[in-house]
Amino acid sequence: MAKTKKPPRPRADTPKGFRDYFGADVTERKDMLDRIAEVYHAHGFDPLESSAVETLGALGKYLPDVDRPHAGVFAWQEDGDGDWLALRYDLTAPLARVFAQHRNDLPTPYRRYAMGPVWRNEKPGPGRFRQFYQCDADTVGTASVAADAEMCMMLADALEAVGIERGDYVIRVNNRKVLNGVLEASGLLDPNEPEKDAERRGIVLRAIDKLDRLGVDGVRSLLGKGRLDESGDFTEGANLSDGQIARIISFVEAADSSADESGGTTFQVTGHPATISLRDRLGTVVTTIKQLGELVENSFVGQQGVDELYDIAELCHVQGYGPDRVVIDPSVVRGLGYYTGMVYEAELVGEELERFGSVAGGGRYDDLVKRFTGQAVPATGISIGVDRLLAALRAKGGAGDAATGPVVVTVMDRDRMAEYQQMAADLRAQNIRAEVYLGNPKNFGNQLKYADKRGAPVAIIQGSDEAARGVVQIKDLILGAKIAETATHEEWRDQPAQFEVPLDDMPAKVREILDRQ
Amino acid sequence: MAKTKKPPRPRADTPKGFRDYFGADVTERKDMLDRIAEVYHAHGFDPLESSAVETLGALGKYLPDVDRPHAGVFAWQEDGDGDWLALRYDLTAPLARVFAQHRNDLPTPYRRYAMGPVWRNEKPGPGRFRQFYQCDADTVGTASVAADAEMCMMLADALEAVGIERGDYVIRVNNRKVLNGVLEASGLLDPNEPEKDAERRGIVLRAIDKLDRLGVDGVRSLLGKGRLDESGDFTEGANLSDGQIARIISFVEAADSSADESGGTTFQVTGHPATISLRDRLGTVVTTIKQLGELVENSFVGQQGVDELYDIAELCHVQGYGPDRVVIDPSVVRGLGYYTGMVYEAELVGEELERFGSVAGGGRYDDLVKRFTGQAVPATGISIGVDRLLAALRAKGGAGDAATGPVVVTVMDRDRMAEYQQMAADLRAQNIRAEVYLGNPKNFGNQLKYADKRGAPVAIIQGSDEAARGVVQIKDLILGAKIAETATHEEWRDQPAQFEVPLDDMPAKVREILDRQ
Repeated sequence: MAKTKKPPRPRADTPKGFRDYFGADVTERKDMLDRIAEVYHAHGFDPLESSAVETLGALGKYLPDVDRPHAGVFAWQEDGDGDWLALRYDLTAPLARVFAQHRNDLPTPYRRYAMGPVWRNEKPGPGRFRQFYQCDADTVGTASVAADAEMCMMLADALEAVGIERGDYVIRVNNRKVLNGVLEASGLLDPNEPEKDAERRGIVLRAIDKLDRLGVDGVRSLLGKGRLDESGDFTEGANLSDGQIARIISFVEAADSSADESGGTTFQVTGHPATISLRDRLGTVVTTIKQLGELVENSFVGQQGVDELYDIAELCHVQGYGPDRVVIDPSVVRGLGYYTGMVYEAELVGEELERFGSVAGGGRYDDLVKRFTGQAVPATGISIGVDRLLAALRAKGGAGDAATGPVVVTVMDRDRMAEYQQMAADLRAQNIRAEVYLGNPKNFGNQLKYADKRGAPVAIIQGSDEAARGVVQIKDLILGAKIAETATHEEWRDQPAQFEVPLDDMPAKVREILDRQ
Repeated sequence: MAKTKKPPRPRADTPKGFRDYFGADVTERKDMLDRIAEVYHAHGFDPLESSAVETLGALGKYLPDVDRPHAGVFAWQEDGDGDWLALRYDLTAPLARVFAQHRNDLPTPYRRYAMGPVWRNEKPGPGRFRQFYQCDADTVGTASVAADAEMCMMLADALEAVGIERGDYVIRVNNRKVLNGVLEASGLLDPNEPEKDAERRGIVLRAIDKLDRLGVDGVRSLLGKGRLDESGDFTEGANLSDGQIARIISFVEAADSSADESGGTTFQVTGHPATISLRDRLGTVVTTIKQLGELVENSFVGQQGVDELYDIAELCHVQGYGPDRVVIDPSVVRGLGYYTGMVYEAELVGEELERFGSVAGGGRYDDLVKRFTGQAVPATGISIGVDRLLAALRAKGGAGDAATGPVVVTVMDRDRMAEYQQMAADLRAQNIRAEVYLGNPKNFGNQLKYADKRGAPVAIIQGSDEAARGVVQIKDLILGAKIAETATHEEWRDQPAQFEVPLDDMPAKVREILDRQ
């Protein structure tokens, strides 16, 4: 019989754009998410874990920044001609489906948090993966500004819970309605013909979104004739008039206007009863909002947005979330097309962390559930950029000490394996992470190399003579490494890196060393 | 312009065979997995989170119980003509890929645990979903029986850590090599022609695997001519001779042979030095293993398997994991084709829990990494059936009190929202879960209905007159429900379900009620 040719070996690779997470990468992220979940849970939010797989129809075309239908997701067809299924690309689209499906059983408003991987079928790049974590909290079923305020304050609490100190972050808040009001006042949005000028408004929004990167002059160019970048590429502008440009620039600059605070004395926003007291308490914020009120002129939606900004500022600031934590900032646009009102963004600030920029964001979206039910359901939510926040925590050394390796019990005598395992069990009984070396024990050097690779703080050694005397050797690997680094051994004389103790004293002695390390 | 027809609304449904997990379903599972992870971590196992998506080639054809290539997985092709990608169907196949890919950076042996969803493209049925959790621990890179023993003991620890009491579970251990030895001794496996009689051996394995369901007589029929089941279907048997059948039946019954324990006095297994002391310590276990030694006769692999069973029994029992927790049971086969040596299974026992049956299992598989590298890498591992174990915990009421709803602060006066939010914040500052009602506050009855749906233990109420007097009403909803159930109110007089306290005393008073509830 002819020998059949063996199939070629498969490549041992993750698919392009995917990666594995090992050890501390997993535990540090988990620790961070656990702390965030605790904050969300304390605020009355319930966990939801929706299916990772959705019908393509349920997901819809809301993938951020992707206008092409079905592009950007991993999708396949059931059984050749069944439903098209796809991996979720975020946690918001599934929430809309879940709420529409289970709305009769869920409380309204429905507060939920969700954490888990999402998948994007995008071109992978450096540091850009096709599977990554999201961590969201949303409140579905209420239009109350109090729900938006809760999001901002809870986000501040969550950031502090994971270790971002007060002063190292700021939650910026804006309102899409104000932006629309400014566009109305500029003659770029006609409430009776909402489709008109949509393209030009798109250019304006994208220009505002680039304020951080291009500065005011760059945005001004993009609002006017266009902008030539350093590479020589020309971006066509919105071709606005000087007056239109001036109004929009005033809008995005309103956040920085706290300098002229002293001027705002007699400002009134129609229909808002708390203005006076607010102004007294919140000078700079009122000044910002006052400017916005002027810029939207008589736009109904614009004034509504201004009122909502007053409300959220008051709700936050009265509860102690002052401008050091929550600020009104008209330059916040947020890329997502589905936001309909308030938008928020959490940014890290200060020399050490500002390079990480925005670590969370969200806003109000009132139309996602409507896709399924035909009824508009107001909703608001935040999403934390898990990888970026974790990177920031690592940069400031606050991602926990999850990386501690186990104590390694070495094997000198293969026949006494049960005794070595008992030593590890005795250590674990004292809450000390411990394991027995299970490779080939012949070469003792390999056992110590293994302990080193595991990041072991301590190694336990017992040869047959030690066993006969009822003792073990404890080797302090951290101290040993320090000794290896220093030129003379004298200073370590009183604290030797390896010493002998009775077997029964071993766990307590190891605990002592770990506490010292 | 003709109005364009709107596309039909998408259905708000999970895809067939998928489901969502809400509230306590999520937290109870998380609590259970956290406890298991703690045990694994204490044993020196490191977490690994591999990508959910693998190349189809890397996954291979090891899907349990599915022989068809690619069947059983959700798969799609990249960009029309790129790699075929697929969702992982378990956590073992990805581990083999990870170890092959990263073997130069990983310690050897590599102990890792992994927890997460896996996906199976199977026909959904009642209680059978196409996405579910697995929770695995594996040690890759050592052939030591100590690694297998560690698995069994750690599994026992994990079960006790989540709340399965000692006596309510048993870890059954067998060795495929012994089974192969019995087949050799029966003339059904020729070490020089391993492919011969493969089909008949398959029938034998499947027959043994059905011992629980069909009993000894059913297995006997399947080993002989075949079996007619109650529905009238006939299953073709292996057509073994009476002698062959007798040997295999003796094999599967060896576990129950502890009755004739007194007989085993002079038994010796070649090459095993610990036999005598073992026999003294472990009467029944030795009797079982002794019988197995006789049944495999001169089969080399069979005797090797018998030696390994001695070793694992000694390692476990010396460390106190006696026959009340770890037993040798020749009827354990495990369905997976890739097991090459020891196999284990954790079964719940006792009146209350035995219906949940096997909640974890695993074994030694030495060839999974070889697919990638050409080199055999010995490995052993366990997998916990997350859903089944959780169901068992729920049945005995040990899945935690994660279901406690938040205290609901009701809204009597929309303008004082900031004050209500402050009350919730004050409660949270005392570690009490709390939220403000954010729906339309007009109908107070709806607010109480909402609190009920949330499982709230307490509601806080403050109208404008209470606010003026600096007090709040606290409504004990649990007590209130009890009162509603009883006929007379007299017994509750001293403990009214609703009472007034000064605002500042509210958090402390609520804590008192929660502690009492």
